[in-house]
Amino acid sequence: MQTLTPVQELKSAIRDVPDFPKKGVIFKDITPLLSDGRLFNDAVGLLSRPYTASHVHKVVAVEARGFIFGAAIAARLEAGFIPVRKKGKLPHTRIKESYELEYGVDQLEIHQDAIVKGERVLLVDDLLATGGTCDAVIKLIRRLGGEIVGCTFLIELTFLNGRKRLKDYPVTSLITY
Amino acid sequence: MQTLTPVQELKSAIRDVPDFPKKGVIFKDITPLLSDGRLFNDAVGLLSRPYTASHVHKVVAVEARGFIFGAAIAARLEAGFIPVRKKGKLPHTRIKESYELEYGVDQLEIHQDAIVKGERVLLVDDLLATGGTCDAVIKLIRRLGGEIVGCTFLIELTFLNGRKRLKDYPVTSLITY
Repeated sequence: MQTLTPVQELKSAIRDVPDFPKKGVIFKDITPLLSDGRLFNDAVGLLSRPYTASHVHKVVAVEARGFIFGAAIAARLEAGFIPVRKKGKLPHTRIKESYELEYGVDQLEIHQDAIVKGERVLLVDDLLATGGTCDAVIKLIRRLGGEIVGCTFLIELTFLNGRKRLKDYPVTSLITY
Repeated sequence: MQTLTPVQELKSAIRDVPDFPKKGVIFKDITPLLSDGRLFNDAVGLLSRPYTASHVHKVVAVEARGFIFGAAIAARLEAGFIPVRKKGKLPHTRIKESYELEYGVDQLEIHQDAIVKGERVLLVDDLLATGGTCDAVIKLIRRLGGEIVGCTFLIELTFLNGRKRLKDYPVTSLITY
């Protein structure tokens, strides 16, 4: 009888959805993992663990799915939570960076007072694909003077080489494809 | 010398932004509260506390801001997290409900397998205003057979009487205006 490791168990709860959001794409649906209280809690613990001694001041995550692990990890580490949002959603003074979409560009924004110079910042997202979004978020964090202690992802699609774009920072991921 | 209660301290970290998202509206900006690790952690603790003995199976929250407290509370309660999203964002089989906007209607969706009949569900959001969104989410939860153990909000705008629309369920809020 084989026993799954905690990470294998998490991976087994991720569902492939073919042709979403468009024909030919296989979407990695994490909602079955999220909806299981024990697995969600395990994932938050495993993602937080490498950073428990890193004195993280702020966890930064991008709407909407990024908020899920971002906020849970921030609370676990007793760090502040900083939302990065799409254009026009944040109410106060903000700075922005462009990032590439498949067709065209879009913009991500962060509040100017979200990070104080020298604060230690952890970037959290559910998925590392090409790294384009993360690259824009890193620029935002650095423009505010934040020190990036790491980037952590539930899933990493290694064949897309996103890690290469983030090579100046420690990158951790739980589940790889 | 006066000492603030924990709730007063949270309230003092909420920022009024005039004329957002449009002229004449004063927006309650919670990002200064979120960005302070101690305050964010306190808020998650205070919002979770009434439900620690409620055997919550699933926490349901609406994108995007609802995910922040929803996910952190789910992890705190060791419950599953269920995202409710706008039209077309969830990849698998879903059901939907319409809700009223100021002009026109929009739709919210939940995965059909997100809740199993009889599961105990806590609804979390950052703001209770008119209750229109919550009302739609409650319908989604009930259609899947979920039993709603409560609705909890960081902020309640009492003058909008949202609580009246949720009168069949326990409602808790931390900060009222």
